Amino acid sequence: MFREAIQQMTGYTPGEQPRREKVIKLNTNENAYPPSPRVVAAIEQAAAGSLQKYPDPVATAFRERAAEVLRSDLPEITPEWILCGNGSDDILTILTRTFVGEGDVLRYPNPSYVLYKTLAEIQGASVDVVDFAPDWTMGDEFAVPVDRLRLAYLANPNSPSGTVVPAERVASLAAAMPCPLVVDEAYGDFADTNCLGLVAENERVIVTRTLSKSYALAGIRFGFAIAQPKVIEQLAKVKDSYNCDMLAIAAATAAIDDQPWLADNRAKVLATRGRMITELRAKGFTVTDSQANFVWCTDSNRNLKELYESLKQMGVLVRYMPYPGWPEGIRVTVGTDEQVDALLALV
Amino acid sequence: MFREAIQQMTGYTPGEQPRREKVIKLNTNENAYPPSPRVVAAIEQAAAGSLQKYPDPVATAFRERAAEVLRSDLPEITPEWILCGNGSDDILTILTRTFVGEGDVLRYPNPSYVLYKTLAEIQGASVDVVDFAPDWTMGDEFAVPVDRLRLAYLANPNSPSGTVVPAERVASLAAAMPCPLVVDEAYGDFADTNCLGLVAENERVIVTRTLSKSYALAGIRFGFAIAQPKVIEQLAKVKDSYNCDMLAIAAATAAIDDQPWLADNRAKVLATRGRMITELRAKGFTVTDSQANFVWCTDSNRNLKELYESLKQMGVLVRYMPYPGWPEGIRVTVGTDEQVDALLALV
Repeated sequence: MFREAIQQMTGYTPGEQPRREKVIKLNTNENAYPPSPRVVAAIEQAAAGSLQKYPDPVATAFRERAAEVLRSDLPEITPEWILCGNGSDDILTILTRTFVGEGDVLRYPNPSYVLYKTLAEIQGASVDVVDFAPDWTMGDEFAVPVDRLRLAYLANPNSPSGTVVPAERVASLAAAMPCPLVVDEAYGDFADTNCLGLVAENERVIVTRTLSKSYALAGIRFGFAIAQPKVIEQLAKVKDSYNCDMLAIAAATAAIDDQPWLADNRAKVLATRGRMITELRAKGFTVTDSQANFVWCTDSNRNLKELYESLKQMGVLVRYMPYPGWPEGIRVTVGTDEQVDALLALV
Repeated sequence: MFREAIQQMTGYTPGEQPRREKVIKLNTNENAYPPSPRVVAAIEQAAAGSLQKYPDPVATAFRERAAEVLRSDLPEITPEWILCGNGSDDILTILTRTFVGEGDVLRYPNPSYVLYKTLAEIQGASVDVVDFAPDWTMGDEFAVPVDRLRLAYLANPNSPSGTVVPAERVASLAAAMPCPLVVDEAYGDFADTNCLGLVAENERVIVTRTLSKSYALAGIRFGFAIAQPKVIEQLAKVKDSYNCDMLAIAAATAAIDDQPWLADNRAKVLATRGRMITELRAKGFTVTDSQANFVWCTDSNRNLKELYESLKQMGVLVRYMPYPGWPEGIRVTVGTDEQVDALLALV
């Protein structure tokens, strides 16, 4: 009855989303703060409009505003370089379906975002997993051709490490690669650099972004891809006609329009992140230098699975992430200063 | 660079969505009226909550309320029988990906919803199109096994005809069929009967619904599938983790909770539909008896493409739909009485 590929796979398990309000939730990299007040106002205005009408199928208002905002990193950008989706997940699904068919190969790094594996499995494709070096640099093998390799994903900044492969390195990997490279910049706004500029240089580089993290809008589901217009054209065939709802479009447009809010939020997150790294190191953890809104902690002297469990008992959720062959670790979202103090008091 | 299947296909073209406010929009079967006021209140309340947090990945609140509402048609239903999606489109995409692989066959009737073809094309599958009889009944050939037939769609009520294949007939077709049958009840709330009861009798019958039409929420994108729990379990592997946003979940839950609004809206739409059919017939059109919120008009004495164009010039949008081998027709959404009067004055 079902496709063999679907029946065989286990499916992706997202981080726990407890419905209780009391939990200090540092497990799924949500922003520590609520979004710009302009977002709430935009939603209220949209809700008072024509909910019975279909939304703009291509989210024109958002794309126009986003093109202006991103021009400093990518001077060539126009709305035709942008495809919007129902969260980054929708964008990653569209990309995978556009490039990867049954029996094809999808490449991604390890340890990284394990959703890439699920996306390949749904397509009936196989995966080619390339390990990071222990210092989280990426070797040339990431660009080596293999039979039926059709797409590569690079989370940059990477999760769980929070590390970045520099844009020049990404450019040379992309140039050597036989297939498109998707640079998943879900956490890009928290980093010092990004790969947007590469999109103009190489039609096979595609950058994805989300409003879930840096714009504090995980609840509304809005992400987008930046690629050359001829690529966007093909991706658009694969998306659902009305994949972004009118409230999400209104919210996302108001959010990206409020760049002062983004700058202020980023500064707060980065300040707390710096303090977290210092204090967690002082407590004996090995913590990578993070360019995202979370930190990756390992510690060969602690049982981190037990630590995760005991923190959970005490109402603090972090993400315990065992990657076979790698030191187990906990990934901790940068929370508010109060949340971080609560965590630090317990570890 | 792209999958061959994607490069070859043209992609689905949704109905026109003019951004101008002045148009009388009777082309995409949106509800003539705004949704329940409780919906707007629910959205405002949700927007004042935690937009920075991920939504409930399985829309529990909606599923619990929907199960109660649907129990009269399907006594066995519990929340485990329901999968929610980002509009019916998302649900149809999930279903197609779960059952139909490259080289497989997807069956659907003609004339009907042409998106089914696009869904097959994206999968690299082929289609087996079975014509309705001229009186819009469906023959036994719809159930005949063919090699690699993996899924069949039946829009019921059908678009563009607005006609219904009775549940007993659907049951016998499903029983004879070698694959699952999806009964797409996007317009089901406007009909006299539905196929929900068949889901308990036959694990290969899946019913889909949307809040876009009968609940006047096309703008928020919310649909759902009803199937036996072991089927829902497999479908859930294919959906994006957070495919419904928190505002849509809040809106949809409030909408399905307001059954008196649904009954009142339905009564208004059906009254106007009856009047439209009578008056359009009086003007010489052949109009099928509709069980949906639109009517299908043919007329061998009129050039309907020209009529569509001239109506558009005058600010009234209807859908001109030529199906090869069938009489061309225009599909007209049931609008408000004022909108319908404006249309009738022009044809």
